[in-house]
Amino acid sequence: MKYSFLNDYSEGGHQNILDALLSSNLEQLEGYGEDKYSLSAAEKIKKKLNCPEADIHFVTGGTQANLLCISSFLKPYESVIAAQTAHIEVHEAGAIEFTGHKINTYLGENGKISPEEIQYAVDFHYDEHMVVPRLVFISNSTELGTVYTKNELENISKICKKNNLYLYIDGARLGAAMLSKNNDLKFEDLCKYADAFYIGGTKNGALIGEAIVIINPELKSYFRYNMKQKGALPAKGRLLGIQFDVLFSDNLFFDLANHANKMAQKLANGLKAKGYSFFAEPITNQIFPILPNEIIQKLSKHFEFYVWSKFDENNSVLRLVCSWATKEEAVDAFLNFEALTKH
Amino acid sequence: MKYSFLNDYSEGGHQNILDALLSSNLEQLEGYGEDKYSLSAAEKIKKKLNCPEADIHFVTGGTQANLLCISSFLKPYESVIAAQTAHIEVHEAGAIEFTGHKINTYLGENGKISPEEIQYAVDFHYDEHMVVPRLVFISNSTELGTVYTKNELENISKICKKNNLYLYIDGARLGAAMLSKNNDLKFEDLCKYADAFYIGGTKNGALIGEAIVIINPELKSYFRYNMKQKGALPAKGRLLGIQFDVLFSDNLFFDLANHANKMAQKLANGLKAKGYSFFAEPITNQIFPILPNEIIQKLSKHFEFYVWSKFDENNSVLRLVCSWATKEEAVDAFLNFEALTKH
Amino acid sequence: MKYSFLNDYSEGGHQNILDALLSSNLEQLEGYGEDKYSLSAAEKIKKKLNCPEADIHFVTGGTQANLLCISSFLKPYESVIAAQTAHIEVHEAGAIEFTGHKINTYLGENGKISPEEIQYAVDFHYDEHMVVPRLVFISNSTELGTVYTKNELENISKICKKNNLYLYIDGARLGAAMLSKNNDLKFEDLCKYADAFYIGGTKNGALIGEAIVIINPELKSYFRYNMKQKGALPAKGRLLGIQFDVLFSDNLFFDLANHANKMAQKLANGLKAKGYSFFAEPITNQIFPILPNEIIQKLSKHFEFYVWSKFDENNSVLRLVCSWATKEEAVDAFLNFEALTKH
Amino acid sequence: MKYSFLNDYSEGGHQNILDALLSSNLEQLEGYGEDKYSLSAAEKIKKKLNCPEADIHFVTGGTQANLLCISSFLKPYESVIAAQTAHIEVHEAGAIEFTGHKINTYLGENGKISPEEIQYAVDFHYDEHMVVPRLVFISNSTELGTVYTKNELENISKICKKNNLYLYIDGARLGAAMLSKNNDLKFEDLCKYADAFYIGGTKNGALIGEAIVIINPELKSYFRYNMKQKGALPAKGRLLGIQFDVLFSDNLFFDLANHANKMAQKLANGLKAKGYSFFAEPITNQIFPILPNEIIQKLSKHFEFYVWSKFDENNSVLRLVCSWATKEEAVDAFLNFEALTKH
Repeated sequence: MKYSFLNDYSEGGHQNILDALLSSNLEQLEGYGEDKYSLSAAEKIKKKLNCPEADIHFVTGGTQANLLCISSFLKPYESVIAAQTAHIEVHEAGAIEFTGHKINTYLGENGKISPEEIQYAVDFHYDEHMVVPRLVFISNSTELGTVYTKNELENISKICKKNNLYLYIDGARLGAAMLSKNNDLKFEDLCKYADAFYIGGTKNGALIGEAIVIINPELKSYFRYNMKQKGALPAKGRLLGIQFDVLFSDNLFFDLANHANKMAQKLANGLKAKGYSFFAEPITNQIFPILPNEIIQKLSKHFEFYVWSKFDENNSVLRLVCSWATKEEAVDAFLNFEALTKH
Repeated sequence: MKYSFLNDYSEGGHQNILDALLSSNLEQLEGYGEDKYSLSAAEKIKKKLNCPEADIHFVTGGTQANLLCISSFLKPYESVIAAQTAHIEVHEAGAIEFTGHKINTYLGENGKISPEEIQYAVDFHYDEHMVVPRLVFISNSTELGTVYTKNELENISKICKKNNLYLYIDGARLGAAMLSKNNDLKFEDLCKYADAFYIGGTKNGALIGEAIVIINPELKSYFRYNMKQKGALPAKGRLLGIQFDVLFSDNLFFDLANHANKMAQKLANGLKAKGYSFFAEPITNQIFPILPNEIIQKLSKHFEFYVWSKFDENNSVLRLVCSWATKEEAVDAFLNFEALTKH
Repeated sequence: MKYSFLNDYSEGGHQNILDALLSSNLEQLEGYGEDKYSLSAAEKIKKKLNCPEADIHFVTGGTQANLLCISSFLKPYESVIAAQTAHIEVHEAGAIEFTGHKINTYLGENGKISPEEIQYAVDFHYDEHMVVPRLVFISNSTELGTVYTKNELENISKICKKNNLYLYIDGARLGAAMLSKNNDLKFEDLCKYADAFYIGGTKNGALIGEAIVIINPELKSYFRYNMKQKGALPAKGRLLGIQFDVLFSDNLFFDLANHANKMAQKLANGLKAKGYSFFAEPITNQIFPILPNEIIQKLSKHFEFYVWSKFDENNSVLRLVCSWATKEEAVDAFLNFEALTKH
Repeated sequence: MKYSFLNDYSEGGHQNILDALLSSNLEQLEGYGEDKYSLSAAEKIKKKLNCPEADIHFVTGGTQANLLCISSFLKPYESVIAAQTAHIEVHEAGAIEFTGHKINTYLGENGKISPEEIQYAVDFHYDEHMVVPRLVFISNSTELGTVYTKNELENISKICKKNNLYLYIDGARLGAAMLSKNNDLKFEDLCKYADAFYIGGTKNGALIGEAIVIINPELKSYFRYNMKQKGALPAKGRLLGIQFDVLFSDNLFFDLANHANKMAQKLANGLKAKGYSFFAEPITNQIFPILPNEIIQKLSKHFEFYVWSKFDENNSVLRLVCSWATKEEAVDAFLNFEALTKH
């Protein structure tokens, strides 16, 4: 059995979550997310965000959160601005376009779009033959494992406000971003800068579920109608509510992200010590080391991971992902793998 | 605390499901429904259906299953034929239309559409100024708790084949239908008559999840692309697979439906014995007794249920729903409720 | 060659229109509807409507006008209320649903929906499992050739305002409605009651073209973006503008409608005099007489028309349509047709 | 009054077209494109294309043709491959995305996409998290006035066939392409290489109208239903049919394109003789000379044109467009403009 560094959704959910599901199991609760656990989870999230006026909705996945929010927030002729590496652009099978909206993509750097690119997008589109860019989509942490600093997010937020653009954050790995050594954002800063975002549960210890947070009052109304219409309002909403109620009890959500980051950091430091370099700075739970192909081949007999891209004739970029459940022994085993050490 | 007969999704999931989630929790598994439990569940379902060539896909809800199947199966100008009481027509917030398709509705009877209505729909639409009806949507059990007999389903299937229509069954409460005293269909008959259907887990003991079954080979290709595009491909697909693996181990799925039906039957028989009549024949886990308003008011202080509709000046139709988890004591308590007995 | 009473779009356009196209032909004009003729036409229409604040847009067809307006005005979860006979429900190949919106239909009477049905639609839809009815669609004249009286329109308008519904009028045959002997609406009354409507050119003497009139300021913004997106902004917008500039010079638009109605009236009176009755009161340019099948068969060798529906074993309902170009001789020939007279 | 080189849709239609509209005006004809002129026009086009099995449909604009074809040809998860300069990507206000489909864009060169880029697009998209590229969109002539050579088109066609991709050509300016001095394609070659394309009338002497040509039998069925659903089936289809019947009588369509190209060629040669260079090779009716800003300013007092883009600090790229109606005197006047000559 190979140990997997493929992703952060290979295991089930944190034990506390399973315990809570068990202990509440036979209670008769309201359907469709109006049960006491969902309400409590929403309260806890709002408290952690220090944002009592936010609206919180729980859904079953990231693509669902993205398509639901974007299609709810935009008018038919309005478009999304995103980096070319954005999940919605590459890895959602055209979900946003299916709901009717164009994505205007720009090169970005390290998975991050710049304020200049956003301004360019706005300026480029100026009459009724073109779409109207209206929402900036960013991921934090990004698809390359990088994070937006407070300063970067502030600048993006400013350019958005100046141009009447909504700022939406895909937080599939928001926990990892918040706990990154490079992060200088407070959790509650998100509410200052973004109009809406989602907090990823699936990739941070939940069995399933993401929490959508809507800050901008313009975007709140009739949201549950849009949820129902997109098949995003499960009858047993308790399943989502209970999990977020647990994740936002004490500090569990952040503790789990911290563990994932720490494991990835240990991997990164070990590889650096052996002289390997990285495709993008390794600062969250996804890291992208560059390794010789012959070593990769040997590693692949003992570990699972994605070969992300070719680097040059003899080397490739790997993606290694750690999760809330990654075992330190596995990290050690990887680092102690003979072929790596001999390098 | 009032006991609830509101619906069949008030409790969590069957204990075996929770046990299986716990015991598999730390196994590292494939994502997106390609894990061993999902594969095993699919095999078990196909075996129970005696249909090895079926394609099985697990999704998180009934509206999601319906919008996903219909939008995958139809071309833009093709429409759905359904009864006016159909869930997709009334209670899915326009989900089908959001994916671009018209629903042509007909009166039906007892929640069931007739072959004559289907033929009428086909004949009525004859040129390019009109949609092309292409899929018949039925629910079994229906939104009124009734079921299609083998003969009825066979006749609908014939009229569909004759007119080149797909037959799709919303099986949110398929378990209850199969275990109804009026049912004469075998589970495997579904594959003979329908082109696709879904088996409802959420309303029959799962925490979340429905199993889509595609029989017609024309409808199978690229289905996972459509799933992803509609936000219906959860990263931890294991959550769905494990549950259906348990439900289709031994006879659990059917045992749970049987319990729900039996409890509803007991309620129905008790009410009949007291002289009450029913809006629709009580043969599955949803029953619709007609009770005097003053009794309803008293009952509502001790039990939860929906007042479905006004019957006449003094009487209303209730909806009482039993589930896999309904306690017999609660049924007894309801039947022994003083106001009812005095009648 | 049979004379055709099939419809009101069998001939080309009025001579004045062709003259104007010729005389302006080589002028170099602005594209996309911003030419001087389009601007002048818009001014003339606003003047006739006594509504200087209206927005006017020219498009190429009625289905286009309907799908464009409805998809521009509504949010994804909002629906349309219409009579079952509505053009958008039956004869637009699912155009409205393709843009994502449900149509909630009600029986109506004589092609007209009632305020009570509208109120019922609003009351029926009360939570997020259902769509939100937001726009009432009526046709004037209706698909059965009937018209809304001032009182009827006022009552519908009131119920719309009370329930926060937009009122939209499909005016494919608005000229015929305005000139009906039963009409007591002034042209400018439309702006008082409707939020938006369109004035049909194609069926009243234009080669092509309808004029969308938007009264409600909420509905005006970014409309040209929606036009472009739906392929409804022709490069040579002059073609549409010139025609409406001619139609709204002097009284031409109304004169043409008057001719069509007068010809239909003559047909209706003649048939009445011969003892025939009508499926709907014959008061615009579409009339629906009930004739014996054997006479219909004879007529069909000399005239073209639609057999609308079976009336009883021996009789059918015809649709006879007169246009701005219908020749009185043809009407006379029809009425003098031997088989009819012998009756 | 400034002479306009803004575009090729500033004037009305060719005199022959107006004559034909006049002479046929009072004939009673079939509606919805089934009149004898539309049928005759289709026959003439098929004959010129030497492709009797093609299906021909007339619509009212280029954006309409593109959105109609693409949404008819593709399944929901399928996408379009196009150059970044493609009209559908930049100048159709998100029309393709509104119908649900993603456009995957690649850099291209001179407005043309390469076979290598197409192959890259196919290879890049390999699983159900991504769209399936299924249709290659090219414009001929391109948005930069360039054309595809026979060899280029053949290579693109090969790569399409190899990868199961449809090839669709936006022929808004197909006439100009066919008559370009660089063109070595025969008109009938289009049917060999493309699965579908449209022949632009609006920009080549028609008042309105484009002719869609469908070659691939897979793409033909139910197309009129899609037309109706998108508001693209005008009641008086005669207006479109008559125009194409005239354009494809004798050689008119090509003669008009030839005139436009010749006028542009004269402009180009004159500017070259004065020492100016071009942003893209001037070979069709759109040319892109690079001129000093101070001269542009002077020219703009006497002529209308678009300043396409900044070239450097002191120079800009102009777009000058000639049409079927461009007067040679205007071309001469432009070339003799003093400021230009002094250069």
